[in-house]
Amino acid sequence: MALIVQKYGGSSVADAESIKRVAKRIVDTRRAGHEVVVAVSAMGDTTDELLDLAQQVAPIQAPRELDMLLSSGERISMALLAMAIHSMGFEARSFTGSQAGMITTADHGSARIVDVTPVRLREALDEGAIVIVAGFQGFNRDTRDITTLGRGGSDTTAVALAAALDADVCEIYSDVDGIFTADPRVVPKARKLDRISSEEMLELAANGAKVLYIRAVEYARRHGVVIHARSTFSSGEGTYVLNEKQRTSRPDQGGPMEEPVVAGVATDLGQAKITIIGVPDVPGKAAEIFKIVAKSGANVDMIVQNVSAAATGRTDISFTLPKGDAAAALKALAGDQSEVGFQSLVHDDQIGKLSVVGAGMRTHSGVSATLFEALSVAGINIEMISTSEIRISVVVRGDDLAAAARVVHRAYGLDGDADATVYAGSGR
Amino acid sequence: MALIVQKYGGSSVADAESIKRVAKRIVDTRRAGHEVVVAVSAMGDTTDELLDLAQQVAPIQAPRELDMLLSSGERISMALLAMAIHSMGFEARSFTGSQAGMITTADHGSARIVDVTPVRLREALDEGAIVIVAGFQGFNRDTRDITTLGRGGSDTTAVALAAALDADVCEIYSDVDGIFTADPRVVPKARKLDRISSEEMLELAANGAKVLYIRAVEYARRHGVVIHARSTFSSGEGTYVLNEKQRTSRPDQGGPMEEPVVAGVATDLGQAKITIIGVPDVPGKAAEIFKIVAKSGANVDMIVQNVSAAATGRTDISFTLPKGDAAAALKALAGDQSEVGFQSLVHDDQIGKLSVVGAGMRTHSGVSATLFEALSVAGINIEMISTSEIRISVVVRGDDLAAAARVVHRAYGLDGDADATVYAGSGR
Repeated sequence: MALIVQKYGGSSVADAESIKRVAKRIVDTRRAGHEVVVAVSAMGDTTDELLDLAQQVAPIQAPRELDMLLSSGERISMALLAMAIHSMGFEARSFTGSQAGMITTADHGSARIVDVTPVRLREALDEGAIVIVAGFQGFNRDTRDITTLGRGGSDTTAVALAAALDADVCEIYSDVDGIFTADPRVVPKARKLDRISSEEMLELAANGAKVLYIRAVEYARRHGVVIHARSTFSSGEGTYVLNEKQRTSRPDQGGPMEEPVVAGVATDLGQAKITIIGVPDVPGKAAEIFKIVAKSGANVDMIVQNVSAAATGRTDISFTLPKGDAAAALKALAGDQSEVGFQSLVHDDQIGKLSVVGAGMRTHSGVSATLFEALSVAGINIEMISTSEIRISVVVRGDDLAAAARVVHRAYGLDGDADATVYAGSGR
Repeated sequence: MALIVQKYGGSSVADAESIKRVAKRIVDTRRAGHEVVVAVSAMGDTTDELLDLAQQVAPIQAPRELDMLLSSGERISMALLAMAIHSMGFEARSFTGSQAGMITTADHGSARIVDVTPVRLREALDEGAIVIVAGFQGFNRDTRDITTLGRGGSDTTAVALAAALDADVCEIYSDVDGIFTADPRVVPKARKLDRISSEEMLELAANGAKVLYIRAVEYARRHGVVIHARSTFSSGEGTYVLNEKQRTSRPDQGGPMEEPVVAGVATDLGQAKITIIGVPDVPGKAAEIFKIVAKSGANVDMIVQNVSAAATGRTDISFTLPKGDAAAALKALAGDQSEVGFQSLVHDDQIGKLSVVGAGMRTHSGVSATLFEALSVAGINIEMISTSEIRISVVVRGDDLAAAARVVHRAYGLDGDADATVYAGSGR
C-alpha cells in the first residue's frame, strides 16, 4: 500500500460533472489499496470571479481580507469533491489550509510555507478516510490569519503535503499528458518524456515551459518528493520528475537511466529586449545601469555587451526582461540618462527566446555547435546567446521562434519518430 | 460610546452595490463613536446555489461536508464587506465562526450554540477595528469541525455575539421597517410597533409572523439582549424587542410602558387540518393517536375533540399541523387504523389560522369576546379555537383569513388611524 498525493487544478473540477469524474479517479486509486490525499484548486474561474467582485467593492483590497475571500474558493470545491466521493460509498473528509496544518509566513497573497503539521490528515488516513485538502491556502501562527500562496499555490500545497506525509509520489494532474520535449503546439513532433530531472524541469519551467510551477518543483527537489505530472483525461502514465538520487536509485522508476544530452527545448515569446546605445565604455557603467533597472522592479534575464568601438569610446548594452517589466525599466533608464551618459534607448518586443536544456551537457561536447548549425542552416539569425551549466538560450526574431524550435528539436534527435537511443550520441 | 451589534441578511448584501451601501451604514455607526460588530449572511442566493451544486454532485450529502460547503458563503460576503469598509478609510477585520469563538454542538446543519469566546473580536475592537463575523456558522470543540446553525442562523449569531460582548443593542436589519401589528400585505392598516415584549414576539413568530426567527428571540430573552429590528433601506427607528425587565426599567426605551391588551395579529396559511372520524370514545385513545402522529415526525399545533355521540360511543378528533407534515402523519395513522379502531381520516389543507397576541390578556377580560364577535359580525365561521396565556388562535377557511385579520385588527383598535390609547380600554 502506497500513500499517494494527487493535485487537481481548477479546470479539472470546473463543474459538477468534472468533479464526479475526478471523484471516480480518486476512488479508483483508493480501491487499488492506496492511501489518498488530494489537494484541490477552486472550481474553474471561481478565483477570477471573486477577484472581480473584490474589484467592484474596493479599488484597493485589504490583503488580509482578499486572502479570506479567495480561500473560500477551495472550500467549495473540496467540500463538493468530498461529497461526491461519499456518494460513491467511500469515507472522505475535507480540510482547510489551517485544519491541514499548512503553516505559512504572514505575507498575504504570496505566503511561503514554513511548516506542515498534518496531524488531522494522518488521523483521517488512519481511520481509512480519503483526505481532501484546500490547495493554495494556509495560515500564519502569529496572526492566526488565513493566507494564500500565490500563483501555482495548489501545486506547492500538494508537494508540501507529499513531503510532510512522506508520500510515495505526488501526482499533479492537468489537461496535458506530461512534460514534453517541446511545446507540442509549437513543435508537432514533440514527445512526452517518461522521466526528467528536477533541475532540467526547473530550467525548462524558468524558460517558458508551462506544465509545472517552479516553486513546486523546487520544493519537491529540496524535500526529495517524486512528482508525477499526468493528465486528468487519460489513465496513461505521464512524466516523473526526479532528483538525481531518485533518477539513479529508484528501481520503481526504472533504475539508473542513461542521461540524455538534451531533455527538451523551451520557447518563450514573453520577453522583450532593451538596448542601451552609446554607453561610455568606462568601468562601473554596467553596474550603474543594472542597479537602475533592478530598482524599477524589472527581472533581467540575458545580458550582452558589444565590443567597444575604440574610436568612440562607447559601447552598446542589450538585455532581455519580461514584456510586462519593460515600460518601468525604460522609464527608469530615461530618467537617469544624463547621469549614466548613454545616447539612446531601443525597445524591441518582437523577440523570441529558445532554450535547449539537458543535464548531459555537463559531460558532452558540441551541444552548442549543434544548435548554432541547425539555426544557420535554417537561415535563422541569432541575436543574443546565454548559457548555464545545463542550458543554452538564444534570442531570435519572434516570427522565427516556431521554425527555430522545430529545426533544433530535430537536430537533437528529439522528434517523435526518432530512435530514443540517439540521445546519448547526439553531439553532432 | 456604545457597543452595537448589527446583522445584515443575504438580501442586504446581494451584490457589490448593496455591500457598499451596508458598508457605508456601518461606517456611519462607527463615525457616531460606537464600537461595531457585524454578523453577515451569505450574498443573496449564494446558499441556494451551493445547495444546488451539492445536489448535482451527490444525491445525499455528507453533513460535515455540506456545512464546510455552506460556510464558504459567509466568508465571501464578510471579506467583501470588510474590504468595502477598508476602502472608506476604516479598519475592519472579518472572522469566521471558529475565529470568532462561536462554539456549537456537533449537529451539522442544525448546530446549537453552547459557548461564545470572542477573544479575537474583543482584541480587534480594542484596536479600534470594526469587526465582521460570518453569520450562520460555528465550530465544534471535540470534532474541530465547522458547523452551521440552520434556518435563521445569522440572527442567532448576532444575538449570541451581543450577549457575549455585552452589547447595548443588537440591530437586526431586513427589508421591512420592523414588527407590525399584522402582516401589512394582509392588513393594509397594520402599524409598526415601537416596542414589543419578547414573549409576545415569540408568540407572533410561532404563529406566522416572519420578521424575526424564534431561536434568536429566545436567545435574546434568555440573555437579556435588546433586539432592534429595523430596515436596511431607511434610517428610521424600527421595533425594539424587550424582555419584561427592560420594558419596565430601561429609560432609553421610554421607561415603563402601558401594556397593550393586544400587541398584534398573526396569520398563517401554512397549516393543514386532519380529522380522525369515529374514534372509540375510551380512555387512552388520544394518547395512542398522538403517539403515532409524533412518531411520524409531525409537529402538532391545535387539537380539538368533539363531544362524544353517546349512541355510537365514538367521537371525532381534529388537529392542525404544518402542511409539509400532513402526508407523513396521514400515512402513519392509516397504517395503524385497525389497532386504533377509528373509521376514517379527513385531510383539509384549505384552512387559515389567525392568532391574537398580547401580554395584557393576563390582566384584561373580554379579549376573546371581542375576537369572536368581530368574526361573527363579518360572517366568518370559526372551526377551531385554542388559547395560551397571552394568545387566542382560531382556525377559519383559508379564503376568509385575510378578511378575518382585517376585522379583528380593527376590532382591537390596532388600525393605523386609530388612537393608540384605545389599547388599554379594548375589552369591548
